[in-house]
Amino acid sequence: MASERSQFSILNSQFAGLTTPLFLVDRDIVRRNCDRMHEKAARSGVAFRPHVKTHKTLEIGRMQHGGAIGPITVSTLAEGEFFAAAGFRDITYAVPIAPEKLERVAALAAKVERVNILLDNERTLRAVEEFHCAHGAAFDVFLKIDCGSHRAGVDPDDPASVALAQAIAKSPATRLRGALAHAGHSYAGRNADEIRAVAHEESDAVTSFRDHLGSPDLIRSIGSTPTASVVDRFTGCDEVRPGNYVFFDAYQATIGSCALGDCAVSVLATVIGSYPERRSLVLDAGALALSKDAGPNHVDPNFGYGIVCDLELRPLPLKLVSLSQEHGKVEGEPSAIARLPIGTMVRVIPNHSCLTAAMYDTYQVVAHGAIVEQWKPVRGW
Amino acid sequence: MASERSQFSILNSQFAGLTTPLFLVDRDIVRRNCDRMHEKAARSGVAFRPHVKTHKTLEIGRMQHGGAIGPITVSTLAEGEFFAAAGFRDITYAVPIAPEKLERVAALAAKVERVNILLDNERTLRAVEEFHCAHGAAFDVFLKIDCGSHRAGVDPDDPASVALAQAIAKSPATRLRGALAHAGHSYAGRNADEIRAVAHEESDAVTSFRDHLGSPDLIRSIGSTPTASVVDRFTGCDEVRPGNYVFFDAYQATIGSCALGDCAVSVLATVIGSYPERRSLVLDAGALALSKDAGPNHVDPNFGYGIVCDLELRPLPLKLVSLSQEHGKVEGEPSAIARLPIGTMVRVIPNHSCLTAAMYDTYQVVAHGAIVEQWKPVRGW
Repeated sequence: MASERSQFSILNSQFAGLTTPLFLVDRDIVRRNCDRMHEKAARSGVAFRPHVKTHKTLEIGRMQHGGAIGPITVSTLAEGEFFAAAGFRDITYAVPIAPEKLERVAALAAKVERVNILLDNERTLRAVEEFHCAHGAAFDVFLKIDCGSHRAGVDPDDPASVALAQAIAKSPATRLRGALAHAGHSYAGRNADEIRAVAHEESDAVTSFRDHLGSPDLIRSIGSTPTASVVDRFTGCDEVRPGNYVFFDAYQATIGSCALGDCAVSVLATVIGSYPERRSLVLDAGALALSKDAGPNHVDPNFGYGIVCDLELRPLPLKLVSLSQEHGKVEGEPSAIARLPIGTMVRVIPNHSCLTAAMYDTYQVVAHGAIVEQWKPVRGW
Repeated sequence: MASERSQFSILNSQFAGLTTPLFLVDRDIVRRNCDRMHEKAARSGVAFRPHVKTHKTLEIGRMQHGGAIGPITVSTLAEGEFFAAAGFRDITYAVPIAPEKLERVAALAAKVERVNILLDNERTLRAVEEFHCAHGAAFDVFLKIDCGSHRAGVDPDDPASVALAQAIAKSPATRLRGALAHAGHSYAGRNADEIRAVAHEESDAVTSFRDHLGSPDLIRSIGSTPTASVVDRFTGCDEVRPGNYVFFDAYQATIGSCALGDCAVSVLATVIGSYPERRSLVLDAGALALSKDAGPNHVDPNFGYGIVCDLELRPLPLKLVSLSQEHGKVEGEPSAIARLPIGTMVRVIPNHSCLTAAMYDTYQVVAHGAIVEQWKPVRGW
């Protein structure tokens, strides 16, 4: 069994009192992932505003900018407030704004240089104007563009979208800063070529909209980890906002955004039940330790709930077939099951690192095969 | 729109500064669910050891015993330590024990009257014996029985299982207290009749095993919320351990464990995008606000990620078709979409309340249509 010859010496570390499940973050891989994307943005001559929603930690927020403070994208106001308190001063809140949240946005914006909000409809613009009349605050706005994922955003080729952008630009309540797209449908890709096609749609949508509007200064902001990862250089945009790339995960590795060796996080789990006669074993990592993302089922309908690996992160011939709250059921050939007796530790590369990370109050930071630090993410909304 | 005539006055409450998503717990429904199960156990003359894993709060832990401290079941040692610190003194840790966790179990057991652990194999028994030799502690043990879910546990009809129970009974390291089964396969039921058949399997398994062993004092412990909910009276067992019943959820209501009106929790969310032309809208409740359980897909393959309701918890003709981290995408007829303009609040009954509750550090406790209290669950392991 790999553990006997492993360089992975977690139990000899200063954190030996910890019990599984644990969320392990490989510091060197995170730094490498961060540096690569940061350098690609610099090389491409575009602004870099990485998303912090995947990791939600100050440590990685700084790594995303090569160790410095820089512009960021957030998915919750709790993230915005947490990073602002630590000195981050240029923040895009990249979820369509709810009118009820304007008061918190205004309070946050008063503490930093800039908070950009997302708008994609007139009704919210009116709510922003009402807030402006009542409280005086004006808001920096990106118009949300639907580039094909059909989740949120306006059609970039609809004249009504241009009219909305013009209304935002003219309103005393708002300053139009740019057009923002997120190629969520890149996750439906099966390989790098398919994702590259989506990357073109993403940059084409914001560029086409800028041309319709006739405003050369409009910032074209794009960003999904698949599209940002498969291109050699960013073109057709002014700003990029990927987030998941700091960790990557089993999903990203399967669709071709990264190699499996780029996955920076894993859940350390212990075998607590072994049933070779039933071709199964049970881990102490269930739905609360891994989250319950079904993974890239469009590539493999029986992908399982993560990739079960040995302590060196080599995939084992096993499938994580089901998760209950604190049990992960794994199936495999009796010989593979027998090689993992009770008490053996394994590492599971999660399907969706953003969701798995959110299950932990503390990340165990691994370097040179041992836990060396603990990082604390912000939680909630 | 329902909100205009709603009795649900959350925004007039003392907690008006809160922003969605919020996890709402209806105190009266929780109490009713707790009382019904507690009374059923009393009426049946069986011991009651409810699971606290669904809610993880002291407040509901006491409600489960009619306002008193009583025996409980936990799914993590963090729960055990949290409830022990609040005075709970009789605890079953109902996940097969990992040898590495014995030290924490022993420390917990030293502070309370009793901590029962689960065993289902000789290898772990040997680890317990080694721990006993080194540290002197002896452990109260339930033998885990597989009653048909094939996740963990021994075959009750296998002579080797009887031999293992005898070894546990004889070992100086362990005290054999009972046989414990969990009918996880009850969740595959489609209606109350199918679940009742599984309930028989559950009690038959522990009874059959007790008879094979020939130990009348062996405690026969059973418990899943579906099986515990559909029977009028507990028979063929000595102890019951349901947990999810305190909240119930969309899954339980769909398979017939409860009525929809028994669901005690919902996620309060706000419409942040409305696209009648695309037959969709977007809520500010995504995978982190709802968790990503696919729900009772064996009953309805297109069930969606929860039941979207108005503020009075009346289901709306909408389907929650996909979740990304902070977006919930809802589809429906254009007329239904148009009735929920931006800023409208809805309540989503989650598919799996155990997993959804775990996404929140604070529960907003609702009574008489307003938030009246906040409860804090324990987290982690």
